[in-house]
This record gives sequence, C-alpha cells and structure tokens, in this order.
Amino acid sequence: MEPLGIALIGCGVVGGGVAKLLLEQQGHLAERAGRPLVLRHVVVRHPEKPRAVPLPRNLITTQIEPALGDPQVDVVVELIGGLEPARTIILNALRAGKDVVTANKAVLAHHGTEIFDTAREHHRTVAFEASVGGGIPIVGAIARGLAANHISSIKAILNGTSNFILTQMSEQGQDYPTALAEAQRRGFAEADPSMDVDGTDAAHKLAILARLAFGSEIPLEVIERRGIDVLHPADLAFASELGYVIKLIAEAWVHDEQLALHVEPTLVRKLHPLADVRGANNAIHVVGDAVGETMFYGPGAGQMPTASAVVSDLVDLAIGSAQLTFRTLRLWTNCRRLRFRSASSIKSRFYLRLNVIDRPGTLAQVASVLADHHISIASVVQHESLDDQEGISVPIVIRSHDAFLGELRKAVETLDRLPCVTAPCAYFPVADW
Amino acid sequence: MEPLGIALIGCGVVGGGVAKLLLEQQGHLAERAGRPLVLRHVVVRHPEKPRAVPLPRNLITTQIEPALGDPQVDVVVELIGGLEPARTIILNALRAGKDVVTANKAVLAHHGTEIFDTAREHHRTVAFEASVGGGIPIVGAIARGLAANHISSIKAILNGTSNFILTQMSEQGQDYPTALAEAQRRGFAEADPSMDVDGTDAAHKLAILARLAFGSEIPLEVIERRGIDVLHPADLAFASELGYVIKLIAEAWVHDEQLALHVEPTLVRKLHPLADVRGANNAIHVVGDAVGETMFYGPGAGQMPTASAVVSDLVDLAIGSAQLTFRTLRLWTNCRRLRFRSASSIKSRFYLRLNVIDRPGTLAQVASVLADHHISIASVVQHESLDDQEGISVPIVIRSHDAFLGELRKAVETLDRLPCVTAPCAYFPVADW
Repeated sequence: MEPLGIALIGCGVVGGGVAKLLLEQQGHLAERAGRPLVLRHVVVRHPEKPRAVPLPRNLITTQIEPALGDPQVDVVVELIGGLEPARTIILNALRAGKDVVTANKAVLAHHGTEIFDTAREHHRTVAFEASVGGGIPIVGAIARGLAANHISSIKAILNGTSNFILTQMSEQGQDYPTALAEAQRRGFAEADPSMDVDGTDAAHKLAILARLAFGSEIPLEVIERRGIDVLHPADLAFASELGYVIKLIAEAWVHDEQLALHVEPTLVRKLHPLADVRGANNAIHVVGDAVGETMFYGPGAGQMPTASAVVSDLVDLAIGSAQLTFRTLRLWTNCRRLRFRSASSIKSRFYLRLNVIDRPGTLAQVASVLADHHISIASVVQHESLDDQEGISVPIVIRSHDAFLGELRKAVETLDRLPCVTAPCAYFPVADW
Repeated sequence: MEPLGIALIGCGVVGGGVAKLLLEQQGHLAERAGRPLVLRHVVVRHPEKPRAVPLPRNLITTQIEPALGDPQVDVVVELIGGLEPARTIILNALRAGKDVVTANKAVLAHHGTEIFDTAREHHRTVAFEASVGGGIPIVGAIARGLAANHISSIKAILNGTSNFILTQMSEQGQDYPTALAEAQRRGFAEADPSMDVDGTDAAHKLAILARLAFGSEIPLEVIERRGIDVLHPADLAFASELGYVIKLIAEAWVHDEQLALHVEPTLVRKLHPLADVRGANNAIHVVGDAVGETMFYGPGAGQMPTASAVVSDLVDLAIGSAQLTFRTLRLWTNCRRLRFRSASSIKSRFYLRLNVIDRPGTLAQVASVLADHHISIASVVQHESLDDQEGISVPIVIRSHDAFLGELRKAVETLDRLPCVTAPCAYFPVADW
C-alpha cells in the first residue's frame, strides 16, 4: 500500500522522540497502520546540531517550502510550539493540501477556530492527541470513546511541572523555589517556567478539552486562572491537616446551561482519585451522563509519552480513521454557544489563611468582615502561638460554607487592609467532589 | 445521510440502556455520528415483559431472522451474553452481511478467533468496546490511542462485583458472605455470582485485552486464576498492617518473549493507583514502551456505563471509522504466537498466612519447610495469642522474597500436612510494582 509521507517541523525533545519511533519502529508501525509511515523531511533551525536520534542527512533541511510542496508528503507534524511561526506553518500546510498533526496547545487554544476552519475549507484533518495530557489518549477518549455522552464536567491535572512541584512541596516539605529548581534539574520545567506555574499552560489545555467536550468555543479570557506560584508551604500543611491535598486543578463544568471554567490551586479530598496523582503525571476526570465518572491517568509530558500520542495520530491518519472522525465531530466549527459563568458568580467552599496579630478581638474582626460579605464560617483552626506572648503573628485557617468567589474576593480585600492582618490572605477553593 | 439501521438482540439491563440512548438521544447521536442511528428491531424472549424504557411496539419481536434479513439493518447488537445462542447469532449476523457490536466477553474469550475470522471472511466489523471495563474506553485506548507502543504489561481490576466486595470487606470490616449479599442487594452481583467471584469473568476480559495488546491468541486455560471467594477477612487486615490492600488483579505481562497471565487476589501497595480503586469501579493500568505508565478508570459495569460503550461503537460504525480500524489492526487473526510462561515458573514475592498451634518449635518447623523449597523469608509477623496459654492457634504472617509459585505451592502442601498447622494456609502474590 501507498506509504504515508511525513514532514516533521521541529526536532527538539518531542520531535526527536517522533523521529525515533518512525525510524526505529518502522515494521511495527506499518503493521498497525496497514501501510508504511515514511519520514520524508525534518525541518530544523540548526541542521548541524548533534541529535540523540541519528537522522539520515538527506532528510534534514532548514527550508519548510520544499516539504509543503512535496507531493509525497501527506502529513505535516508541527512540533515547534508557541504561537508563531507555528500558526502560519499549520495554515500553510493545510492550504498546501496536507493534513496536520500538532502537539501545540497554545496555538490551538488561541487560533483553534481559524485552524479548524481552514482545515475544513481545504478538506484536511487536524489531529492533536498530543496537545493535552501527553501520552494519555484523552482526546480520543472524549471525541470517540465517550461519544454517547453529554459531558457535564472535566476536572483535571494538566500541568506536569506544577504537579511535580506540588508533590515535592507536600511530600518532601520543600519550599516553592527548591521544588522548582528540582523540577528544572530533572527536566520537567523549562528554563522559563512561568507558563507552567502560573496556570496558563493548563488553561490552554482546558480550553481544548472543553471545546471537545462541550462543543463550544472557549475564548481564553473566560478561563479564570491562578497558578501554584502563589502557594505557601504552610497551605499544603494546613490542607493536609484538614484531610486535603492541594492540586492545580483545571475544571470546566456545565450547570444551568452555563459553562464555568477555571484553573486554580484547589483543596481536593485525600480520597479522591485526583489526590493520588503524583509527580509529573497528569489525570483527567470526566463525568458523562451515561458513563458516570471516568478518569484517565498517565505521564503528562516528556519526550516519548508525547511522541506516543503524535504517532498514534499518524497511525490513525494512515488508516483513514482520523479523517472520518474529524469530518463528523463538531470540533471547533459550527459549535453551540454556551454562556459563560463569570468567575465572581461561581459558588464554592473556600479555604482562607490569614496571618494575624495574636491579640483579643482579632477573630471577631475577621469574622465580622466575612459576615458582611455573606460568608458563613464552617470551621476555624488557630494554632497556639509558640510563646505565650501577645502580639505575635499567627495563622488562622478558616473554611467557609458555599460562598460566591466575588464576595470572597471583596472580603479578602477588606481583610488585607485590617491592621491586625500582617500578610496578604491566601484563599483557595475547596472541591465539593 | 443514510441512517445506520440497528437490530438489538436482547433487551435486559444493558439492552434497555442502549435502547434508551438510541431513542432519547437521537438528535445528539445523529450529530456526533453525522447520520441518524435508527433502532429497527428489538429481539426479546418475552415481548410482553414491562420495560423501564418504553419501546415502540412495532420494534419488538421474538424472531431473529427478520432482523438479520432486513436490508435496512446494518448492525446487529448482541447483548444476551453467555456462549450460546450468542455465538450462533453473531456468526449468522456476520454471514448475513451485518456488522456486530457486542458486550459479551465470554463469547469473545472463548470463540474470538472464529468470530473474527468469520467477520473478515465476510468483510464485516466486530466492535466490542463494552466487553471490557464497562464504560471505560479501554479497547479504543489500546487499539488506537497507544498504537505507537509495544505494550509490556497490563494490570487491571476488571470485575466490579469482586472489587465492591473487597472494598466492603476492607473498609466496613464485613465478612465475605455479608459483603456478597450487600453487592447482590445493590444490583452489582448476579443471583449466581460464581463467574464474578471465582475470577472467570476477569479472566475472560484479560484474554480480550491481552489479545489486543500483545497480538497473540490467548487460550483461556493458560490464564491461571483464583477468585476472591478464597479470601478471609484476616488477610485483608494483615495486608493493611503491612501497607497493602488486597485487590483481584488480572495481570498479563511479557518478559523474555514469554507471556504470563493470571487473575488472583494480590497484595498491592497502598500508594499504587490501583489500590485506590473502590466499589464497583474498574481500572486498567497499561505500560507501553513509549508512553510509560497509564491508567484508565471508571465504572466497570452497570446499565448506562455499558450502554455508553455500546453506543460509542455504534457511532464509530456510523462514521465508518470502526471498520477501518478493524480491518487494519491485527485483532485476533494473523497474530503472533507468544510462548506462555507456566504458572509454576512465575516468580513473585508472596504473602503466606498460617494458623498454627502456639508452642515452641512451630516457627522452626515452618521455616524449615520453606527453606526446603528455596523460599527465603523476608518478614514474619506473629501476633501474641490473647491468653498466655500454650496450645492456642495463632496466625503467622510470612512475607517471602521472590520465589517460584510452583515451589510455594509444594511448600504449602507440605505445611498443610504439618500437625502444628490447624487450617489450610492462605497465600497470595505481593505485587512488586
């Protein structure tokens, strides 16, 4: 049978993994796909750079046009990441009549509509299993495996770097900078980790999953986000005392025909399956009306896991199945328009930590501010200060009953201005699942 | 577009769920599939039986032949379970030119080769997502999502009834009969639960997964199996003391080009993701060479979860993607032949509980029997007998280093004959993962 011709754009960590699979597993992949998967071009910036996978010299090029113009190329695999030139490359590939496989969550989250419209216009397919959840086949699971369901919620750990740092902080008692340095040393975190730790990367992935699951366009700005860079080790310890772990949870759910989305450090009950996701792993918990609660777990990033997802898309394209699925599923285009719930109108229980001067009347002041904002207190833990002296700053940990985020924020603003409060309050939602 | 015509054979619990989805979610499913999914016949034994889902009377029939002969039927959904007449119905449907969707693990485990050969001969497709893991899209995950991988092991909780009983026993301290009765009361266990609790059902499902993952025929008799009906509550308690939970684990792994398969109550470290699978849920842990460790979790049985899987197969058939995947993947036919590792040559750590007379020399006798079979002791726990009297029977819990199952069994035979041993020894593997 006719081979599937592949042009690889970018040969960094993930690209190297894809090249490795295509070159070393030719027989196995041809068997799975029913036809050979043939690497025809590898477009890189620095052709002389030594690479872990020895690439045949004649495949390497710095020019993208010959790859797009080659009639023997069926699929362009975009693995350079970021918005530009990735967006332009993807659009040009589709216009040149190539199918596209991408692991690029940023470009899909920002320019998904344009990319998918262009693909449909040119009768091409975009496959993106690797863009979310690394090696976990979550895109296929939602697009196909759970096709019979109306999905009501997605709760997920989508950023491996953040989860690794949280695991180090909670299990090894490390502080944030130490855990981040450890993540960088082990290759989980980039030199500039800001998109990972501030929740942006998880928000990109959540946007992709939510579009798939809810069939609605998701403008990125509707995803309320906070990252783990705001976390203090004390919060992990207090959460643990209360029976919770703190995870960076990306969540999307439909209620009353409104879609709510946010990415936030969240207190998760220790018994919940998401609480046990450790290290650089990802997990996606999906609730569907027919299936109930399902969860998909695995390595959320890394060379070979992500390459595994890219190559599964290539096999699906070689078989012809990806094209059929893409054409029929309402991905990105013609989608329903859900209303978005504003962050301030989201109700949740909250964890609130205040550092206060330990003197009579402090708790009364705090409680009265919360009452002014209709926030009802479920529990208070105030640890005794170490010496018996008044005037020492001590942490108070308050759990609220259900309250509106908007009201909580206003309360925190007021609390932060109280003279008895010595440092900005920390607050995180407490999951009710 | 041309609708996909469906004949439902069997309308019990799962069949009722499938009918419900097809009738109540017509619009949603037509949108997902790109064409209507139309229920044309429901073949039942007792047409007058009242049903939770009101079926149009003109669809109900007791005759299967008109359904197979109807040119407007594209797919036959077999949901009667068991070996016969299910096998004959599936074969006849394929010969009549119909694709087949089935949730029947027994018929696939026993007659998979015949069924798949017949399908290929008649250029038809068999889809069976619902046969393993209930609503968890595990067949799609292995067949497509992990297609780039050589899978090295599958470790799974595949029987929801057993897992529910184990959860009740370990968390509520119930004994086996009480937990089983509770499972029956809640509808998780059949009136005759023997196939669930003796490991047969899990072995059927493991055979299907192993065929998919390893591309090898799996004669059922090579799957060594023991069920949870052999468990004593004391073993759950002792396991917990040692940092483990006992789960009915179905496991298949390749080592040295040999495939080992077994279903057995197994001690699993409390930190392992499989340890947290509670109640009637299932989970499948898959290790692939590229992806690493992944896990798929969800409801392993039940009306709507299983119906969700059946209908996802129908959507895939309507799209045309299931046919392409089925033709290309080496399911069942033309498969590689792996050698099977005999159970007795499987090496593992073991948990061994003996009830012995509490008198001097007993432990020495036990230890010497184990030494005779080259079984090295890693730890011993002997609880003090409640009163200080010699001659009372006390449990001794021994953990071994790696030992051959064959040797362990011989040792247990000898131990069971010792006069100081008052009840048959219990032994279970201790997972090293």
